[in-house]
Amino acid sequence: MQLITARYLATQPDRDPDVLAENIAREQSLELTRALIPDPVAERFLGRVLNVIRLDDERWQLDIGYPMALASKQIGQLLQLVYGNVSFYPRIRLTGLTLPESLFDRLPGPIGGIGAIRSAIDVPERALLMTVLKPRGSAVDSLAALALAFARGGGDIVKDDQNLVDAEPVDFALRVTACARAMERAADETGRRCLYLPHVAGSGAHLQCQLDIVAGLGLKGVVLCPWIMGLESAAHAARERGLMWLAHPAMAGSFTEPNDRGIATPVLLGTLVRLAGADISIFPGHGGRIQTGHGDDVGATCKALTGSMGPLRPTLPCFGGGKTLEQASRAAERYGNDVAVLVGGDLIARGPAIRRDVETTIAAMHNSGTGQA
Amino acid sequence: MQLITARYLATQPDRDPDVLAENIAREQSLELTRALIPDPVAERFLGRVLNVIRLDDERWQLDIGYPMALASKQIGQLLQLVYGNVSFYPRIRLTGLTLPESLFDRLPGPIGGIGAIRSAIDVPERALLMTVLKPRGSAVDSLAALALAFARGGGDIVKDDQNLVDAEPVDFALRVTACARAMERAADETGRRCLYLPHVAGSGAHLQCQLDIVAGLGLKGVVLCPWIMGLESAAHAARERGLMWLAHPAMAGSFTEPNDRGIATPVLLGTLVRLAGADISIFPGHGGRIQTGHGDDVGATCKALTGSMGPLRPTLPCFGGGKTLEQASRAAERYGNDVAVLVGGDLIARGPAIRRDVETTIAAMHNSGTGQA
Repeated sequence: MQLITARYLATQPDRDPDVLAENIAREQSLELTRALIPDPVAERFLGRVLNVIRLDDERWQLDIGYPMALASKQIGQLLQLVYGNVSFYPRIRLTGLTLPESLFDRLPGPIGGIGAIRSAIDVPERALLMTVLKPRGSAVDSLAALALAFARGGGDIVKDDQNLVDAEPVDFALRVTACARAMERAADETGRRCLYLPHVAGSGAHLQCQLDIVAGLGLKGVVLCPWIMGLESAAHAARERGLMWLAHPAMAGSFTEPNDRGIATPVLLGTLVRLAGADISIFPGHGGRIQTGHGDDVGATCKALTGSMGPLRPTLPCFGGGKTLEQASRAAERYGNDVAVLVGGDLIARGPAIRRDVETTIAAMHNSGTGQA
Repeated sequence: MQLITARYLATQPDRDPDVLAENIAREQSLELTRALIPDPVAERFLGRVLNVIRLDDERWQLDIGYPMALASKQIGQLLQLVYGNVSFYPRIRLTGLTLPESLFDRLPGPIGGIGAIRSAIDVPERALLMTVLKPRGSAVDSLAALALAFARGGGDIVKDDQNLVDAEPVDFALRVTACARAMERAADETGRRCLYLPHVAGSGAHLQCQLDIVAGLGLKGVVLCPWIMGLESAAHAARERGLMWLAHPAMAGSFTEPNDRGIATPVLLGTLVRLAGADISIFPGHGGRIQTGHGDDVGATCKALTGSMGPLRPTLPCFGGGKTLEQASRAAERYGNDVAVLVGGDLIARGPAIRRDVETTIAAMHNSGTGQA
């Protein structure tokens, strides 16, 4: 039988670790004591304990196998399966997830991924520079001017801030159109392309209206907040329109930041986001205003996004949360070329020097490249 | 200016608490240092520190006011506003949320709530008994037989387990139809109504197809998992069809269970779920297989769901996670009549005595009522 295997870290387990492992296997699959489950149902659907390993005085590793059918070929139900109810158990963290290849038939990952992004902006190799349009409440002209200066300097990707949300679609249309036009103007001047990703949010007709506007402008992608919209809802919204999407991690810190609970960054913002089809995944990384509390997560998250995963295309890892141009210049030294760095405030603070400083940074990113692609 | 006020608990703050409060106010609103925000934008949109109070040696209470416009009249964006990025800050927990009345124009709460549920089953006063259809993988007949026995005993609400998900709509249709028919049969026999809430999941056409089937059967509501589907996506799916919905808390433990991070149960599974329009909110409460780690949350969550909140109808609080018939019998003694108790395994284990034990429990719930309604 094909199994989805989940690795949990149990810290200071509140019961015998072997019993705990059995409890989790049942809780996350059939949610009944074994005696109440008919044998044929248990054989096909009950989760099973694969390994219980003592790591140190306080911590155990529990490996559980779940029959693949329990995911119902849905990314949302996969979340349910591996962490739904156990999120209420004391000190259980999901730290690993391995999926059978046949699950990829229905969860095929990014429609574009790193290759499509590089192709859209014609940058085959080096690390990429991204900026963000903010603050909310700014005049449309001033956001468009920021996008224009960044694109003129040769920047790679402009995204809307996740706080840029309009209660009325007409305001969204005016703002996004102005920024898209600024990008076209820069492209006409420089002969280079910069990718613009508007933030799309909400539900129902309002959500669809924003997606119509984005598609109508011929833009290639959007920013979505999957931990607010729902991972599957976000993935579906983008895929239905053939749009690429950047997964913003708002709210995800509740899962990733505790050491003893939640879901580790490489699983949540790596494996799961890639499986859902995000083309770019932002996560904190090291340094800046917001950084991950886990020293070893950054490389592992990059690997989860870009390493081999059946037929899935790689998702572009992007470090965000108050990163600087200086950090962007050196990103490839540590993590290779297939990363992006999001620089917001440090760039906006340059004022009239934005274009020049973007040029300088892109040149430094080019020179510090590792040759890996 | 109308403010949304958020109360945060900072445990072992990593910087001066006054500075931390200013940082959060900026992070969650405009995400730029003050010097980079034009004055007119700051006046209209910048979050502001209202109070910084030392609670003890380790903990501070930070009250922040956010201009109401930042929520963009969307429940999803309200989540973004009060906890999006700050989820990555060390040891910050959202413990309180107060909303201006005018926000209720666009976030009007439940379409039915406690009153509509009581009316549908003609139980004007006492605490309510709910059960759950499981395990997944059971024959349809066996799930329908469980529903039938519960309804014949006079049980109030039957919900699908959140693991009951079909990859193919035809299987959903067959299963839900059989269970709905069982409920009709029981109603014909007993003259009483029991509410059946199928679990609906996924996205796009598959989600819509399930909702079509539920509406076509004339059922009054569904189970949704808002922390998997997205709170706003879930609310929209139900509201568009005029269906009531039960909010299942899968994944929500990541927010509620740490003491020093995340979002307190009364805010997440109380205020926010009610504002989104859930008619029933399940949360762990005391006792049973899954229980909350916070002694004082249960009453506060009930109050957040049922107490005065502008024009919003009250949402029915439901204790779940391995509760027993014995606990159900006594629930009203502690929390009043406006609660439901979800009993799964303890009821299923009764086998042929299910109907009788439901009758006995309902009688006990009737007798232990407080007269509060």
